Parts: sequence; structure tokens; C-alpha cells
Amino acid sequence: MDPPLNVPHRENETVLAEAVTNWMFTRDYVSQGLGIQIVEVGPGYSKLEMRVRPSMTNGHGICHGGVIFSLADSAFAFACNSRNQKTVAAGCSIDFLSSARVGDELCAEAMEQSLQSRTGIYDVVVTDQSGKRVALFRGRSHRVEGEVLKE
Amino acid sequence: MDPPLNVPHRENETVLAEAVTNWMFTRDYVSQGLGIQIVEVGPGYSKLEMRVRPSMTNGHGICHGGVIFSLADSAFAFACNSRNQKTVAAGCSIDFLSSARVGDELCAEAMEQSLQSRTGIYDVVVTDQSGKRVALFRGRSHRVEGEVLKE
Amino acid sequence: MDPPLNVPHRENETVLAEAVTNWMFTRDYVSQGLGIQIVEVGPGYSKLEMRVRPSMTNGHGICHGGVIFSLADSAFAFACNSRNQKTVAAGCSIDFLSSARVGDELCAEAMEQSLQSRTGIYDVVVTDQSGKRVALFRGRSHRVEGEVLKE
Amino acid sequence: MDPPLNVPHRENETVLAEAVTNWMFTRDYVSQGLGIQIVEVGPGYSKLEMRVRPSMTNGHGICHGGVIFSLADSAFAFACNSRNQKTVAAGCSIDFLSSARVGDELCAEAMEQSLQSRTGIYDVVVTDQSGKRVALFRGRSHRVEGEVLKE
Repeated sequence: MDPPLNVPHRENETVLAEAVTNWMFTRDYVSQGLGIQIVEVGPGYSKLEMRVRPSMTNGHGICHGGVIFSLADSAFAFACNSRNQKTVAAGCSIDFLSSARVGDELCAEAMEQSLQSRTGIYDVVVTDQSGKRVALFRGRSHRVEGEVLKE
Repeated sequence: MDPPLNVPHRENETVLAEAVTNWMFTRDYVSQGLGIQIVEVGPGYSKLEMRVRPSMTNGHGICHGGVIFSLADSAFAFACNSRNQKTVAAGCSIDFLSSARVGDELCAEAMEQSLQSRTGIYDVVVTDQSGKRVALFRGRSHRVEGEVLKE
Repeated sequence: MDPPLNVPHRENETVLAEAVTNWMFTRDYVSQGLGIQIVEVGPGYSKLEMRVRPSMTNGHGICHGGVIFSLADSAFAFACNSRNQKTVAAGCSIDFLSSARVGDELCAEAMEQSLQSRTGIYDVVVTDQSGKRVALFRGRSHRVEGEVLKE
Repeated sequence: MDPPLNVPHRENETVLAEAVTNWMFTRDYVSQGLGIQIVEVGPGYSKLEMRVRPSMTNGHGICHGGVIFSLADSAFAFACNSRNQKTVAAGCSIDFLSSARVGDELCAEAMEQSLQSRTGIYDVVVTDQSGKRVALFRGRSHRVEGEVLKE
């Protein structure tokens, strides 16, 4: 599945991001357990979808903040590992703008804002099926030793 | 189960906090699904425990940040609803200090730092079985209309 | 200086934002003391500039984080008060991406990300004269009673 | 000014923290300009005081958030450089709990929460003369190459 040598650079990067994400996703039992779907990935980018299930609600009957965070955090993880350099979360902040309810189709889109040396900043916007913003997430990544996918 | 009239004020508050937390916990399918145990609750306070299971790992083979966040977020929710005034999360930040691994016994302790009008600040410290700090969480709460437990 | 009645709605909003910002700026001794210049304001928006002076450095000889924060915080304040509803900061976070040095010309651009009921989220990007990102700031606003400019 | 060899370890650390802080403070034109006073420093710790002056107010006539942040940020800087390893701020968050007014005597106390490899977390609590909490600040530090004070 090596891209041919004459594929443009950006396309190669996308192929690499897809391979890394697929590798991570098959081992990411949380993202799988939440029913997260990968819509698109690229260098420094990812877009995920997830449907809110009854098992995702909290004591107020709305989607648990931890579930929304997990969706955003997975999008962040796929975006910051997309260049195959093993990278973990150092810290994150999330602002909850509106409640999500059972049946809502959430979308999380992660975009790289900064990447310098070992540290990156990624913004993730979580929206529902109507396009309404549910949460804004900002993640700080820290690159560690090694690659995700070995040769 | 009404406390007798001569019970000191603080004790009454703890009884109320326990009743509210139990009511919320039985409806909180996320906390239940994660196997979270309530250790202690009181006014503006909660302490929870959770064992890291294989299903909680991410693509790097360590506990998913969303799971650690969910544990802290539940502790925050029980602490900020402990006075029976319906309260939701406005925003949270989390710093990840060390990885948690399968089998680790995590403890999340939430403590109220500030409560004014409708807004509160709660700090949650997540530690493992050796007492090592796994994460520091800070939540901003917003009180909405109504009570959790009706008379 | 009332705008004529046939001015389009957006233009009226910009005129109001400018009037509110000017009123606030003449009373904002911190922004004035830092030599901040207003480049542009509009509904939910502001753009400021500031030159880093020798008096703005810290013990490491680079621009003090508090000065960069103050620039971003002023941009946030002008953006969230731009509709003439008195609004204060509830909380802010800032990530420092690169150092600013004496002589650097910093620009802070604040953009409204969310505004619901009394709460808003504003992102501010601080760049230097080369366009390099110096800091990312996110502010959470809280509307209080009253207007900035009285009739 | 070398401490004698029989001085306990902790005392040596405090002497070092004081020397580093003094060195930084004499070059920190922002802290000096704000009239900040050093009350106490130690390993991973600092306590500062500052009186709110008329020049520190914003367009709403209360102390500018950037000034409160600067006070907290200086406390953070002195705490995270206190072991003489050159350390800068990677990011900070602040929650504003109550307004500060002209004449208020603010105190900022910084306490180390975590220090691992090159990364630390410091909490700073800002209170006024009555002990009321004005702001909660959390800083993330990043150690860079070199020492603050050379031999």
C-alpha cells in the first residue's frame, strides 16, 4: 500500500495520516466503544462522528461531559499523531456551549494551530447535526520518543 | 430517612449530598459503565474510585485521556450538585501528569474552591494506587434552574 | 455622530462597537499605559497593536507573559463589550508559542466563537510583525447588568 | 554568601530561591513597574503582594484582568525558577472570582503541584486584604536550557 513515488507530497502525507489513524483506531477501545467513526484525516487534521446513545447520559439526563470530551480528545489524538511521531496529550481545556441529547449526531473536527519542536496546539470544534456548536476544545500535545507505525 | 432535627448542620448537609449523589449516580450510565465507585461525598466534595480496564485504553496502549477526564468530571458533577441545586459544567481544563495503565486503581477527589452566585470552581486531583498524581482537573460550574432531588 | 437611519444594520453595529470601544479605551489606563493602538473593532471583534518596550521585559529578558496576556485581554474586552452590554471576563487561558522581544510589533485579533445568554467565548490570536504566532488566548465572558454607554 | 556546609538542605534551597528571585526581580521591569513586593520565596514557592493603583483600572473602572494575571504570572515565574533551572511559561489559565478595586492589597501565593522532567504545574491563589479570593491561576512551566544564576 506504498504510495507511488510520483504522488504529490500532500497526498503522501494524507496516506500516512490515514495509515497511522487506522492503526491507532484498531487499538483504541474507547473510541470503538463509543461508536466513533472516522470521517477524514490528514496532516494535523481529523474529523470524527459519533451518535449519542442512551448509555452516554449523566445524572441530568443529558450527554455526559466526559463523552463529549472523549470524542474531542480522540480527534485531537488522531490529528497530533498524524505525522507518525508518537505524541500524547499534555493538557486540554473544554468549554461546553450547549447540551447534547440522545440521538444527536456529533461531529468533532480537529485542526492544528501550532506545532513547534515537541509541542503542539490543536483546536477541536464539536457540533451537532444542525451545525450548532456543542463544545470548543483546545489540546496541548507533547511529542515523545518513537513512531506510531514502525516501518 | 429524614435526619432527626438535632443532627448538626454539617451532618444534614452530608446526608443531602449523599442522597443527591445516589439519585444522580443511578441515572449516570457513564459513571456506572466505567465501574466508578463512590467513596465519599459531602457539601462541595466528592471522592470516587475506578479501576482501569483493558477496554479503557487508547491507540498508545495507555488509559484514554477521555476516561480519566470522565472520572474527574463525574467527581466534579457530584461535588457541584451536592447542595441539590441543579448545576452543570460550563468548562473544564485537565493536565495529564503521568500515564495510567490497565489495572491501576484511580482515585478522584473533588474540592470546591469557590462558589458565588451561580458560578463555582472545583479542583479535582486524580491519583493512582501509589498516590502518584495522574491528572489535575479544574471545573467551572454553572447553576441552572431547579433542584436535582424534588421533595 | 448618530448614523443616518438608512445605514445598513451591520454598519450601525460597527459604529456602536467603535463608540463603546472609544469610551472604554479612554478609561482603560492599562491599555493606554501599554501603548496599545486600536486598529479595528466591530460586533464581536477587535484588533489591537502594541510595540514591545524595554519596560515590558521580565527576568529572562523577554516580554513578560502578563503583558502579552494584557494585550489579548484588552482585545477580548473590546470584542465582548462591542454590543454595548456590560460584560466582564469570567476566565481565560493562554498558550505561549514563541517569545516576544523588545521592538516586536504585536497584533491581537479577537473573534467571537460563541455567544449564548450571558456567556460568550472569544479566541484571540497574538502575532508578531512577521506573522508568527506568539500566543493563543481563549476568554470566557459573562454579561452583567447594564450598558457600557448610556443613551 | 555561600551557606555554611552544616545548614540543612531545605535552608540551602531557600537561600538559592531567594538569590534567583532577587536576580530575576531586578531585571523584571514589569513586576517593578507594578509595585510588586516579594514577601517570601522557597523551592517551588513564592508569595507576592501588590497594591491596586488608579493606573491599573480598565474601562469598567475595576482592576484590569491583565494586571491580576501579571501578578499571578510573576509569582508563578519566581516559583518555577526557584531551583535556578531556567524555566518559562508554556501556558496559563485564570478564573476571575471577584473584582479588585483601587486601593486593594492583593496577595499572590504560588505553590508547585507537580514537577516532572521539564514540565511543572503551579497553582497561584490571588486574595485581597480581607482574604477574599480574587482569582485562581494555574500555570504550566517548561524548563529550557541553562541556569538563571551563573556560578
